[in-house]
Amino acid sequence: MAEEVKVLRFWTSPFSGRVELALGLKGVSYEIFDEDLPNKKLSPLLLESSPIYKEVPVLLHNGKPVIGSMTIVEYVDDTWGNGHPIVPKDPYERARARYLASFIDDKIIPNFRKACWLEGEEQKRGMEETKENLKILEGEIKGKKFFGGDDIGLVDIAANYVAFWTGVVQKVTGVSLINEENHSNLLKWSQRFLSSDVVKGTLPDREELTALYQAARDAILAKKALSAN
Amino acid sequence: MAEEVKVLRFWTSPFSGRVELALGLKGVSYEIFDEDLPNKKLSPLLLESSPIYKEVPVLLHNGKPVIGSMTIVEYVDDTWGNGHPIVPKDPYERARARYLASFIDDKIIPNFRKACWLEGEEQKRGMEETKENLKILEGEIKGKKFFGGDDIGLVDIAANYVAFWTGVVQKVTGVSLINEENHSNLLKWSQRFLSSDVVKGTLPDREELTALYQAARDAILAKKALSAN
Repeated sequence: MAEEVKVLRFWTSPFSGRVELALGLKGVSYEIFDEDLPNKKLSPLLLESSPIYKEVPVLLHNGKPVIGSMTIVEYVDDTWGNGHPIVPKDPYERARARYLASFIDDKIIPNFRKACWLEGEEQKRGMEETKENLKILEGEIKGKKFFGGDDIGLVDIAANYVAFWTGVVQKVTGVSLINEENHSNLLKWSQRFLSSDVVKGTLPDREELTALYQAARDAILAKKALSAN
Repeated sequence: MAEEVKVLRFWTSPFSGRVELALGLKGVSYEIFDEDLPNKKLSPLLLESSPIYKEVPVLLHNGKPVIGSMTIVEYVDDTWGNGHPIVPKDPYERARARYLASFIDDKIIPNFRKACWLEGEEQKRGMEETKENLKILEGEIKGKKFFGGDDIGLVDIAANYVAFWTGVVQKVTGVSLINEENHSNLLKWSQRFLSSDVVKGTLPDREELTALYQAARDAILAKKALSAN
């Protein structure tokens, strides 16, 4: 039986990108279904597949839904076990990789977003937290090619936002958090990660993403100018 | 070499209880270290083991820290693989169990807490969300002995809050959310789960927990009375 693999996603979402990257590393072909998030019109397929979260990404494997980006990444590794290994085999390394992936989801991404997109006290706190978070991540990657060793693994996939999205967000918002002086190892890792052809195939077009974020930024500034009048 | 297994925990924490339950199911002996959370005095061992989250529970296995309650539960299953099985072997069932465990952490517990401990609009929203959440959980357990089949598994462990803590919280706060009319299967599951000797060994004393929650409730009411004057 031919396998049917569908990804319900949104093109700007790093979480969707993780799923595509895991499938790409395994050499699994999949069909993309882009949800209309800007107009908040979710497809019946998404609503039926993910009735609780109603979020992208969803993986549909032979019609069965798998939900949650890192859960999907682990599912892909479990299901197509013979390809590129993603989750470490050693129980302790595995637990540590899951912990670092949670750290990226619970701390790094939300704090980075706060630091770049919010204002006042919340932004300030976001910046302080991000500096601490990045220090930890810089320490984790120091002396290594990838977070799990010599090739892309679970934590690298979780950190795709750090490698790619942060650059675009910093450029558009003018906030500078990642720099050569303090994060030289993280920046080298980003370059290494982004030079992988499989990774490249899962990233949004940089110019299109920049234009979208710029429009969001302009809208925020226009609203602010209006409210000041 | 004798194994050294330590659990840094707090006696009222359902998340700590999950770790103890996983170890208990595997028949692993462990040493308990209670953190002084009420006085916010964390032990040097906790701060050193979990520098990012600074939270219980932490499992120390031969000195190596494992962090995050569900990550610890999976680590216990990976490490003591021959005992009672916790994580489903089938990749799809495994992904689904992880998804339901996330649902309990992301939705059920925070919404239930809001519904019971907060007031006004936030409480109202918490109650509405909890009703929806419980409907889903009731549907998941219907026709089954445990969430994963005939014995306690990953989702049951994640749902320990639902089986035990919700009863105490409802009694103390007077909020009634789980009832025979709408949640007969969930209540039957709770009884089944709580009748396990291993589970019993990981629960706080009901009267002590009730007294602690009652004191917290009294403090909230006293503060409210004071601010109304």
